[in-house]
Amino acid sequence: MDLLSIKDPSFLKNLSQKELEALSEDIRRFLIEKLSKTGGHIGPNLGVVELTIALHKCFDSPKDKILWDVGHQSYVHKILTGRACDFDTLRQYKGLCGFPKMVESEHDVWETGHSSTSLSAAMGMVIARDLKKEDSHIIPVIGDGALTGGMALEALNHIGHEKKDMIVVLNDNEMSIAPNVGALHNVLGRLRTAGKYQWVKDELEYILKKIPAVGGKLASTAERIKDSLKYLLVSGVFFEEMGFTYLGPVDGHNYEDLFENLAYAKKIDGPVLLHVITKKGKGYTPAETDRTGTWHGTGPYKIETGDFVKPAVVPPPSWSKLVSETVRKLAREDERVVAITPAMPVGSKLEGFASEFPERMYDVGIAEQHAATVAAGLATQKMKPFLAIYSTFLQRAYDQVVHDICRQNLNVFIGIDRAGLVGADGETHQGVFDIAFLRHVPNLVLMMPKDENEGQHMVKTAISYDDGPIAMRFPRGNGYGVPMDETLQEIPIGTWEVLKDGEDAAILTFGTTIPMAMEAAEQLEKQGISVKVVNARFIKPLDEKMLLTIFGQNIPVLTIEEAVLQGGFGSTVLEFAHDKGYHHVTIERMGIPDRFIEHGSVKELLKEIGLTTEDVVQKLQTLARIKQKRA
Amino acid sequence: MDLLSIKDPSFLKNLSQKELEALSEDIRRFLIEKLSKTGGHIGPNLGVVELTIALHKCFDSPKDKILWDVGHQSYVHKILTGRACDFDTLRQYKGLCGFPKMVESEHDVWETGHSSTSLSAAMGMVIARDLKKEDSHIIPVIGDGALTGGMALEALNHIGHEKKDMIVVLNDNEMSIAPNVGALHNVLGRLRTAGKYQWVKDELEYILKKIPAVGGKLASTAERIKDSLKYLLVSGVFFEEMGFTYLGPVDGHNYEDLFENLAYAKKIDGPVLLHVITKKGKGYTPAETDRTGTWHGTGPYKIETGDFVKPAVVPPPSWSKLVSETVRKLAREDERVVAITPAMPVGSKLEGFASEFPERMYDVGIAEQHAATVAAGLATQKMKPFLAIYSTFLQRAYDQVVHDICRQNLNVFIGIDRAGLVGADGETHQGVFDIAFLRHVPNLVLMMPKDENEGQHMVKTAISYDDGPIAMRFPRGNGYGVPMDETLQEIPIGTWEVLKDGEDAAILTFGTTIPMAMEAAEQLEKQGISVKVVNARFIKPLDEKMLLTIFGQNIPVLTIEEAVLQGGFGSTVLEFAHDKGYHHVTIERMGIPDRFIEHGSVKELLKEIGLTTEDVVQKLQTLARIKQKRA
Repeated sequence: MDLLSIKDPSFLKNLSQKELEALSEDIRRFLIEKLSKTGGHIGPNLGVVELTIALHKCFDSPKDKILWDVGHQSYVHKILTGRACDFDTLRQYKGLCGFPKMVESEHDVWETGHSSTSLSAAMGMVIARDLKKEDSHIIPVIGDGALTGGMALEALNHIGHEKKDMIVVLNDNEMSIAPNVGALHNVLGRLRTAGKYQWVKDELEYILKKIPAVGGKLASTAERIKDSLKYLLVSGVFFEEMGFTYLGPVDGHNYEDLFENLAYAKKIDGPVLLHVITKKGKGYTPAETDRTGTWHGTGPYKIETGDFVKPAVVPPPSWSKLVSETVRKLAREDERVVAITPAMPVGSKLEGFASEFPERMYDVGIAEQHAATVAAGLATQKMKPFLAIYSTFLQRAYDQVVHDICRQNLNVFIGIDRAGLVGADGETHQGVFDIAFLRHVPNLVLMMPKDENEGQHMVKTAISYDDGPIAMRFPRGNGYGVPMDETLQEIPIGTWEVLKDGEDAAILTFGTTIPMAMEAAEQLEKQGISVKVVNARFIKPLDEKMLLTIFGQNIPVLTIEEAVLQGGFGSTVLEFAHDKGYHHVTIERMGIPDRFIEHGSVKELLKEIGLTTEDVVQKLQTLARIKQKRA
Repeated sequence: MDLLSIKDPSFLKNLSQKELEALSEDIRRFLIEKLSKTGGHIGPNLGVVELTIALHKCFDSPKDKILWDVGHQSYVHKILTGRACDFDTLRQYKGLCGFPKMVESEHDVWETGHSSTSLSAAMGMVIARDLKKEDSHIIPVIGDGALTGGMALEALNHIGHEKKDMIVVLNDNEMSIAPNVGALHNVLGRLRTAGKYQWVKDELEYILKKIPAVGGKLASTAERIKDSLKYLLVSGVFFEEMGFTYLGPVDGHNYEDLFENLAYAKKIDGPVLLHVITKKGKGYTPAETDRTGTWHGTGPYKIETGDFVKPAVVPPPSWSKLVSETVRKLAREDERVVAITPAMPVGSKLEGFASEFPERMYDVGIAEQHAATVAAGLATQKMKPFLAIYSTFLQRAYDQVVHDICRQNLNVFIGIDRAGLVGADGETHQGVFDIAFLRHVPNLVLMMPKDENEGQHMVKTAISYDDGPIAMRFPRGNGYGVPMDETLQEIPIGTWEVLKDGEDAAILTFGTTIPMAMEAAEQLEKQGISVKVVNARFIKPLDEKMLLTIFGQNIPVLTIEEAVLQGGFGSTVLEFAHDKGYHHVTIERMGIPDRFIEHGSVKELLKEIGLTTEDVVQKLQTLARIKQKRA
C-alpha cells in the first residue's frame, strides 16, 4: 500500500492478516530503501515491524499509550502515525527526529533516547489514569538490553508491588547493541529455549492431577515431573516472583501469536510481562545475519550488497579507537589497567582491547551507575580502571562519580566519549553538560586534547596519574590525521599551551573549537588584530600561572567551548579572575546557550548556535575595539 | 569485657559461643549508653551485633573485605576494630564518623553513606582479587531496603552473570528506614515465612525419589509435591535465577546458625547470597518495638524510658514538615497533586499527606531514578507531581532530571530537602552540589526561601506554576518561627527582594545565609558602611532587572551561598555581569570551597569554611575600601 497516505493507525483495524503481512513487507522495503540513503537504526526497526503493527491494531493510540524505550525502534510507529513522508529528512537538521518526539505527533506520548526510562514513565501514567478513573492501556515496549538498566529494575520492583494494570512488552532480540550480558539475560535465554510457559504450567498441573491414576508408569512420571519442575524453574517464575503475570515467549513475527497474547494480556488484572522474541534486522539479510551490532545503527549503504557507502576520502581513525587502542598499548606494560564499558564495547572501540586482554575487560551491560562504582572498587585495590563511557550516559553515573569515585579520591580514568555535539542523535545524546556537572566535583582532573596526538599523550597522562580521579573528554567522530609521536609522554597536570601569540586579545579554548579559534585568529591577523590562542587543555585544574599572566596583560579574553555556557569552562575562568582580584578584565564567553539542542549535523548546529569562525571573528573585532578604547 | 581495650578483631577467634554472647551484651549496653548521649543510628546497629561479630570471627579482616552498604550500621564493626574509645565523639566535629572511613581504620575498605553501592564496589574488588590471583573473601553486607536501589540491582545482574566468588550478606530486617516497599520486598517476605530453603529442596528431592515406592499413599504424596512446589516457588529461586547460590533464611541473632552458614558460604564456588534475618533495635525495647522508623537514627535519649531528650525550647516545625504540610493543604483544592518519595516518607514528613491522600502518595522505595521519572510520567498526564527528595539523593536522579523532566519541560515540583550543610551525617550527605548540578539544566526554575513564611508561598508558587519543572531547595532542621500568613500567594518567578537598602556594597544571598548577611550589614552600618542586602530567592532565573540596577550603581557585589562555589550561584552572577558587559563590576563570592566537607555541627563547619557573620563583615570592609578607592 501507499505508506505516504497513512494518516493514523485506525486503518489497521480493518485489515486481514494477509493484508497485514503485505503491509509488513511494504514497510520493510520502505525502511530498507529510505535508510540506505539517510542511515539510521535499521536493525532495531526491521525487528519490530509486526510487533508495532500488532500493537497499533490491538490498542487505540493515543488513548492507549505506547511508550518506546530508548526510542530508536520507533520508525515503524512513525510510519503508522502519518510520518512516512518525512523519512527523507530522518535525523537531519529540522527533519524527522530519530526518537519519539511529542511535537511530531500526539501518538508520541513519551520521549526517549536514554534507555530504561519507559517503565517508570508508564508507572506515572498508570497512577494518573487510575486517579482520573480513565480507561486506557499503558504499554511500555522495552528491550532485553534496556531491562538491565538500574532504573528499569527499580521500576519492575515498584510495578510488581503496586499491582496496577500495565502491559510491559519485553522486546527480546537476544542482543541490544552489542551481544547482551547479565544474569537477567541468562534468565531470558533459558525462557527462550523453555518453550511456552503457560503450556508448561498447564502440563504440570495435568501431570500432578494424574499421579494417583498412572499406576505402573510411576518411574517415568517422576522423571517427567522432574523435567517439568526444571521447566518451571527456568520459566517466567522470575517475573512472576516480581509480581507480574508472565506471558510468552511469543514469536514477534507471527501475527496470530501476537494477537492471541495481546488480547489475553488485555484481560489480565495487574501488571503483565509479555515476552516477545524478535529478530533484529528481520527481512534484510545483511542486517539479519549481523552478530556484532554493525547493523544496529548505520550510515548510508548499498541495498543489494549491504556494503556501506564509503566516504570519498578514508578518514583518520575515530577518537574512540585512538583512546581505546592507546589504553590497550599501555595495558601491555601496566597490569593494573582494566577496561569497563556499560554495553558499548563496539561504540567505544574496545574490541581490540577485549581480544588481547579478555580477562581485563568488563562489559557490564546498560548499567552506568554500576560501571562507575565497579571502577571505584577496582581502584581501591590499586588497579587502574579505565571507564569508557559516553558523555550523555555519564549523566546517569553523576552520583557515583561524586560519592564513590571523587569523594574517595580513587584513581579512576574516565574516558568521556562523544563529548560536545553529536549530531544526528540529537538532544537526548548531545554531550554538552559534562563540564558543568563535573567541574564542581572536588578532586577530579578534567581535560580535553586538541588533536589525536595530544590525545594519546593525555591517555598516557591519565594512566600514569596516581593522585585521584582523572577524566578526558573527546568528541564523536574522527581525528584530524595529524602525525603521531612514537613515544608517549605525560602532560603536566594543569598546564596549558600557547598555540599562537598575540597582544590585542586572547582566546582560551580546547578540543574541537581550537581550529575555529586558530582560523579566526589568522583572519584577524590580516586585519591588524593580533590574537593569542591558548589550548586550555585542562578544564580543571586551570593553568593559573598562564591565566594570571594573561590577566596581567589586561587584554580582552574570549573563552570558547562546545559545551553549555552555564557553569561551564568560561564560567570557571570568570570565577578565577574575580577570586584573584582581576575584576576589571573583559572576559566574554562563547558556547552552547541555555536550551536543549536538537538533531542536525554538527556544522549546522554550530551555525545555529553562533559558534563558527565568523562568529568568533566578529566577537573578537568588538573585543579588540574595547581594548583600543581603553588604550 | 572492656571494649576500650579491643585493638582488632583477632581476639574473637578464641572466644567460645558463651563468651561471644556475653560480648554481644556488652556491645549492646555500650551502644545504648553511648548513643543516649551522642545520638546516632541506634536501631540498625543493635540489629547487627551478632552478625558483625560472626563476620569478624569467620573471616580475616582486612585481608577479607567486609563492605557495609549505606554504612550507618558499622558501629559494631568500629568497636571490634579498635574504635570504642572514640564513641564519645561520634558524628561530632573532628570526631568518629558515623559511616565507614578509610582514614579511621584499615578495616574500612569501602566508604559509604548513600545506599546500594556495596555490590558494585565488591565486584570491582573481586575482579582485582582474581586478576592479582589473591586469595580473599569479599563480603558486602546490604540491607533489604538498599537492595531495591537500581545500582544494586544492576550489580546483582552482573555478579550473577560473572559467577565469581563473592558472599553477599543480605541483612533483612523487614524494614529499612520506613517500612519497606517493592516486589523484591514481597519476595523476601515469602522467603521469611517459607522456612529454610535448603531443607525444602532436600525434602523435595527425597519425595521425588520415593514416588515409585510409596504405593497407596499417592494422593497425599501429590499434595505434598504440590506444597513443596509452592515452597520452591516462593523460595530462593529468585536469587538462584539471578545466578546466586541462595542460603537462608538464617536467624541473625543465633551464632550457631550464623557460623554454620558462613562456613558453608565460604566453601561454595561462585556468588552466594546469604539471607540473614535480623531485628532492628534488638535488645533495647523502645527501639525493638518501633514500627515507624523513629529509632532508625535518633538524637540523645533517656535510656530507662526511651524518651528523647527534648530541647529546652520547643523549636518551630521542621522545614520538611512545613513543605509537606503546605503541599497537603494545596492538594485539598488541587486534585492533580501527587506526592512521591524514594523511601523517605518519615524524613520528608509526608505522613500527614499519606493519611489524608493515601491514593495520591507513592513511596517507591530506595529508587531515586525511578521516582523522578514516575513524576515525569505523571506530569505528561497533566498531574502535578511533588517529588520530595533530599539534595544529596537527588544526585542519583541527575540524568532523569535532565533527560526526562527538564528536556520534556514537564511540570514536576521537586522539593529539595536537606539542601546545604547537614551536619552530623557528614560528607556523603551534605546537600551542597545541587545548585551546581541543576542551574545549567535548561527549563528548570530553582529557588530557595528566606524563611518558612516565604517557604509556604513558594510551595504555592511551585504548585501553581504550569510552564515546566520547578525546584525549591530548603535546609535540614527547623524554621525560625516567623509569623505565617493565612493566605498563600504566588511569588512572581525570577523576582528578588531587597531586604535592606545600602549604597556602599550589595550582598546577594538566599536561604540560610540571609541572617548572617543581615547581621553583618547591621554591624557595618554602625561602622558607617551602608550595605544593601538582597534576598536572591530565585537562583534561576535571576532577577535580571534588579541585577542590572545594582551593576549600574557600580558598587561592589558580594554573593553568599551555603553551596559549592564552583559553578554555583555566585558564578551565575558573574556570568550575567560579563554577558551584559559589566566587566568592571567588583564581584566576590563566598561559599563552600572545592573539597568535601566532613561531619560536625553546621555552625562548626561554617566556621571552618569561613562562612560566618565575622567573615562577611571582614570581606565587606575590604570591598567597601575598593569602592572608596574608586570614588
